[in-house]
Amino acid sequence: MSDVTSDWIAVDWGTSNMRAWAMSGSGVVLAEATSDKGMGELTRDGFEPELLKTIDDWLKCPTTIIACGMVGSRQGWVEAPYTTVPCPALPEGFARPVVKNRDLQVHVIPGIKQTDPADVMRGEETQIAGFLARNKNWDGVICLPGTHTKWVHVSADEVVSFQTFMTGELFAAISENTVLRHSIASKGWDEDAFTNAVEEAMARPERLAARLFSLRAEGLLDDLSANAARARLSGLLIGAELAAAKPCWLGQQIAVIGAGGLAKLYVDALAAQHAPATQVQANSITIAGLTAAYQRLKG
Amino acid sequence: MSDVTSDWIAVDWGTSNMRAWAMSGSGVVLAEATSDKGMGELTRDGFEPELLKTIDDWLKCPTTIIACGMVGSRQGWVEAPYTTVPCPALPEGFARPVVKNRDLQVHVIPGIKQTDPADVMRGEETQIAGFLARNKNWDGVICLPGTHTKWVHVSADEVVSFQTFMTGELFAAISENTVLRHSIASKGWDEDAFTNAVEEAMARPERLAARLFSLRAEGLLDDLSANAARARLSGLLIGAELAAAKPCWLGQQIAVIGAGGLAKLYVDALAAQHAPATQVQANSITIAGLTAAYQRLKG
Repeated sequence: MSDVTSDWIAVDWGTSNMRAWAMSGSGVVLAEATSDKGMGELTRDGFEPELLKTIDDWLKCPTTIIACGMVGSRQGWVEAPYTTVPCPALPEGFARPVVKNRDLQVHVIPGIKQTDPADVMRGEETQIAGFLARNKNWDGVICLPGTHTKWVHVSADEVVSFQTFMTGELFAAISENTVLRHSIASKGWDEDAFTNAVEEAMARPERLAARLFSLRAEGLLDDLSANAARARLSGLLIGAELAAAKPCWLGQQIAVIGAGGLAKLYVDALAAQHAPATQVQANSITIAGLTAAYQRLKG
Repeated sequence: MSDVTSDWIAVDWGTSNMRAWAMSGSGVVLAEATSDKGMGELTRDGFEPELLKTIDDWLKCPTTIIACGMVGSRQGWVEAPYTTVPCPALPEGFARPVVKNRDLQVHVIPGIKQTDPADVMRGEETQIAGFLARNKNWDGVICLPGTHTKWVHVSADEVVSFQTFMTGELFAAISENTVLRHSIASKGWDEDAFTNAVEEAMARPERLAARLFSLRAEGLLDDLSANAARARLSGLLIGAELAAAKPCWLGQQIAVIGAGGLAKLYVDALAAQHAPATQVQANSITIAGLTAAYQRLKG
């Protein structure tokens, strides 16, 4: 037993890994632990032992644990059914997996669904709650770039509607699993190529399908560099996303939640469209959302 | 030595396999042979022995061989530099690899390139030549569906311009290498889902990026079947292609060259847009193009 005396434990358990924080009641992080056993690798019976192994040093009994992410999906530890928009980012109820071995009170935050058009999020709702906890009465659009980028319309402390774009995953699938892999660098960048591609895709988004092979042809015929091709593919896909999401962000206050490079690309691309956006670092936002859930639980 | 006495040998040597035909001077197929050693598997030195192994039974000396496809790419047996549009589908010159062991006259048909926008084809030019050999003075647009679908504007027996869409490869990359693989059947079909998706994508092509994740969400929330999801993804991508290619095909005579299912999808989708297209079976078209090249060579 370590000398960490936490009031509760915050957990973000996604598809590919898990992060846990020993927390004070007021939301201060006392210690951190991680596991590379994400939901994708675990069967239902595997969550409890993996959690115990990861946070064993902090455990006293009873312990309150708040978890978000894919841990609450149908393939997760316990299914936390989606709440339906419009709804608060943190809905009233939690799902609670059966814990056999220790006196752990595990609470899993539900994801949010939208019926028409059909869409789902799980994990992002907690980041949105964290953002709103820090920015009271904020109205506008929150963009959460990633494998599956979300655009979320928030008003009066509720999630009003949202839309998911597979832009990050499309970038990976196209640059790694098509003929373009011969033309695209695995790292490297070209700022101008990105900016021009965003502009091109936004001006004529319906031509996206026609533009992809040009990356290959320009590599063969015009010596387009592999760095420029990488930046150009990213710009075409993000530009197409911004064009399709325009009815959502146009004229709105915009916050982009994300660490480092990818979120910065969105902020820059939006700036070029005269849409200023605030970039918010993601690392502490999730913890702020889990803390808001804990504090609600404790009344 | 078999009893085949051919005048020449036709070869279609692509990325993933090679097909060869023993031919009469007038273009009749006397025998056929195949190899699974495509350009992708061979180094430059590997082409000659593979060809000899495949067609050994037919060889007499000297033998004239006409080949098309990726065998003429920079990574092929010999580079057959691209001809530039506007040009005949079969340009004047051939590339000729060095053959050391036998008196083989191998002639490789060059591909075609376009400078602005940059684009390339290699192999399709021979199918186009075959189509034009059978359809004298045909003006219009030829669509060649496949991994990389080509739309080719043909007039006065020349290739005027063309455009490549990575639709087939995008379908494979998205359905196999993204989260949609959980929602999409590996076979199976839903005709209505395809038709509706084509229509939807054509009406609002700029929203393609927004629609892909809905296949996942509708699977989770609305029990969208895996067959319908597969047909819908295909319809969205083909619809986006038809929308982007519309300036090319609108008001034109259209021929779709391709065997079976995929070409039929294009014909049906075009018909729904009141653009009737003729479907032409591909298998004999390549041989007709190689025969046209042989007859030109022999004057």
